[in-house]
Amino acid sequence: MLVTLTTDFGGGSSYVAAMKGALLAVNPAARLVDLSHDLPPQDLVATANFLADVLPWFPIGTIHVVVVDPGVGTERSLLCVEWRGQHVLVPDNGCWTSLIADGERPVVHRLAERRFWRSEVSATFHGRDILAPVAGHLSRGVAPADLGPAVTAWQRFDLPRPATTPDGVRGEVVIVDRFGNLISNLPGPALFAGSTVRLPDGRAVKLVRTYGDAEPGTLVALIGSSCRLEVAVVNGSAAEKLGVGVGTRIELLSPR
Amino acid sequence: MLVTLTTDFGGGSSYVAAMKGALLAVNPAARLVDLSHDLPPQDLVATANFLADVLPWFPIGTIHVVVVDPGVGTERSLLCVEWRGQHVLVPDNGCWTSLIADGERPVVHRLAERRFWRSEVSATFHGRDILAPVAGHLSRGVAPADLGPAVTAWQRFDLPRPATTPDGVRGEVVIVDRFGNLISNLPGPALFAGSTVRLPDGRAVKLVRTYGDAEPGTLVALIGSSCRLEVAVVNGSAAEKLGVGVGTRIELLSPR
Amino acid sequence: MLVTLTTDFGGGSSYVAAMKGALLAVNPAARLVDLSHDLPPQDLVATANFLADVLPWFPIGTIHVVVVDPGVGTERSLLCVEWRGQHVLVPDNGCWTSLIADGERPVVHRLAERRFWRSEVSATFHGRDILAPVAGHLSRGVAPADLGPAVTAWQRFDLPRPATTPDGVRGEVVIVDRFGNLISNLPGPALFAGSTVRLPDGRAVKLVRTYGDAEPGTLVALIGSSCRLEVAVVNGSAAEKLGVGVGTRIELLSPR
Repeated sequence: MLVTLTTDFGGGSSYVAAMKGALLAVNPAARLVDLSHDLPPQDLVATANFLADVLPWFPIGTIHVVVVDPGVGTERSLLCVEWRGQHVLVPDNGCWTSLIADGERPVVHRLAERRFWRSEVSATFHGRDILAPVAGHLSRGVAPADLGPAVTAWQRFDLPRPATTPDGVRGEVVIVDRFGNLISNLPGPALFAGSTVRLPDGRAVKLVRTYGDAEPGTLVALIGSSCRLEVAVVNGSAAEKLGVGVGTRIELLSPR
Repeated sequence: MLVTLTTDFGGGSSYVAAMKGALLAVNPAARLVDLSHDLPPQDLVATANFLADVLPWFPIGTIHVVVVDPGVGTERSLLCVEWRGQHVLVPDNGCWTSLIADGERPVVHRLAERRFWRSEVSATFHGRDILAPVAGHLSRGVAPADLGPAVTAWQRFDLPRPATTPDGVRGEVVIVDRFGNLISNLPGPALFAGSTVRLPDGRAVKLVRTYGDAEPGTLVALIGSSCRLEVAVVNGSAAEKLGVGVGTRIELLSPR
Repeated sequence: MLVTLTTDFGGGSSYVAAMKGALLAVNPAARLVDLSHDLPPQDLVATANFLADVLPWFPIGTIHVVVVDPGVGTERSLLCVEWRGQHVLVPDNGCWTSLIADGERPVVHRLAERRFWRSEVSATFHGRDILAPVAGHLSRGVAPADLGPAVTAWQRFDLPRPATTPDGVRGEVVIVDRFGNLISNLPGPALFAGSTVRLPDGRAVKLVRTYGDAEPGTLVALIGSSCRLEVAVVNGSAAEKLGVGVGTRIELLSPR
């Protein structure tokens, strides 16, 4: 059974390694897959974007353990979310709710059955003491309904959405990737032929289909990997060239 | 069979990748689990703390390969340690001895049987040329006693221990995690109600049960994930706020 | 079936995680092994050196997915290379050709059969949309010949080779590892007893067998893990001490 791990603990930290041990101690046959341990610390927006970009690609039956948990040890709940045939074990902080389409109704259980937890639960590391062993049991066939009561209310967390303007749509940069590409929340399909992409300094950016369609060093806009508008510098870093980052406004002007 | 890897080679280095290949070449069915490749280079203290925090969580039968090896190529031995049903393959530099409780007697063999090694052994990379193939053979069922002679002496390495003072106990910061939390070597149970935690600048720190029990920005002390006293800033970095790091003295004053 | 992943996406990026999902969606039984996700962005020289250092260690039958792809979305092809019983899925940018010995003739197919791809292919992420699903199918037993037509021409990419000089051989630093060791392209066997290693500043470097053969802080030269000449500082960083890096010239003077 595939079990993925997504945390903000830092690649190579002892926290990640201890979680793996606690999970494998319950189910040594679980097949672990690292998704990321380098999410920005306690950043729920980044986590929400990450999950939305990644989880739809996984096969039915996958179990995802997500530990970005600023509220650890407080009264916040831990949840088991059933979503399109996959399971997500996650603190109730809303970071997963961007996965849910309007009108979609996930089945959610609150983790309450302590027999599936580590016998002694620390106040600061529920990833290791609750989520990891629960994932182990779930991967061995325990049913979500056995983990605790069904719930119908949870924290919601809305990602910043683009706003309609008189001239088109206004969004913002939500991720800067390792290449310095500026990935926005503007949906790719909004980009008609003839549209103009405008940066905060008023500059208009050339639209291309892919990076290789312009000369190295050119500032370009394109529909990126997640089907969202992206601003890039060919063979370079747009973040560095423009000196901007997450939160920078990007406008998409409709064709005249 | 589970085989974990812990090194200071750096995540993404060719050294880690080559070790994986050399191990899987001997046993393609071995199930590899990365623990950390980002231990501070050649830092035996950090390695000892890491192993003590992590290895106890793993199930019986796990094989751990540990390569932090400043003495590679010299006459230092390589060991196979049997510890509570797990196996640790590790250079004889003492980094694993913090796992052993007083009075506990691990069974240790010195790797000597060259038929389990790569035929040509480099002078600088025993992780790839000896430890990885030996782990492959061990995971296929070779007995530790077949790897070389039993030994009863090895390098020991004592981690800094807290000292008793007239007023209580004095320890030090041994790990700074990614969040800037200062993790000390003071055992959690030493922290009675009414105890005071004092920093080198004389400041007393508020005791809490978990991070969420105080306002963002507050400096707090708590019993952390490894059951040791930890100094943290809620939703912030204590290391940054205090400008301190590994080695900083922390005092625990008994209740009056 | 073992499937390894090598990219320049950055450890912990959503790109790596999405690729894993797309691959496991085709073959949930594939056994993923991370080699590196931290290759320098779009650096084909570094990728070529990495593959040459790493792939020879893996067992027959391994499938390697390599995504360092500055030309993504352009007309460059994607290839399936059969090499000594292993398979390499890789953009046609030459980064794999350093694996091939003179006279060796790999069997290469160009990926063309779209039924093995994601139905909708983005212009910027062929790793996820083509290479990952093709690797999934290959690991399920699809034959390379079914992936597309055999080809006999491809991009070649020659790594910088040492030059013969009147006094010996001149090479350059091609990798700086995490320890600050300077790894050159000078083959170890060229290093006779009595040879002298000379740095650009004219300094001659002491030859040793391994790091531990000299005092901490000493600048040494030795035959490193990949059987190439390496300049190191014992328990320190040669890169930092000398203030040099990739491209620095290293001369090997023959014994007089």
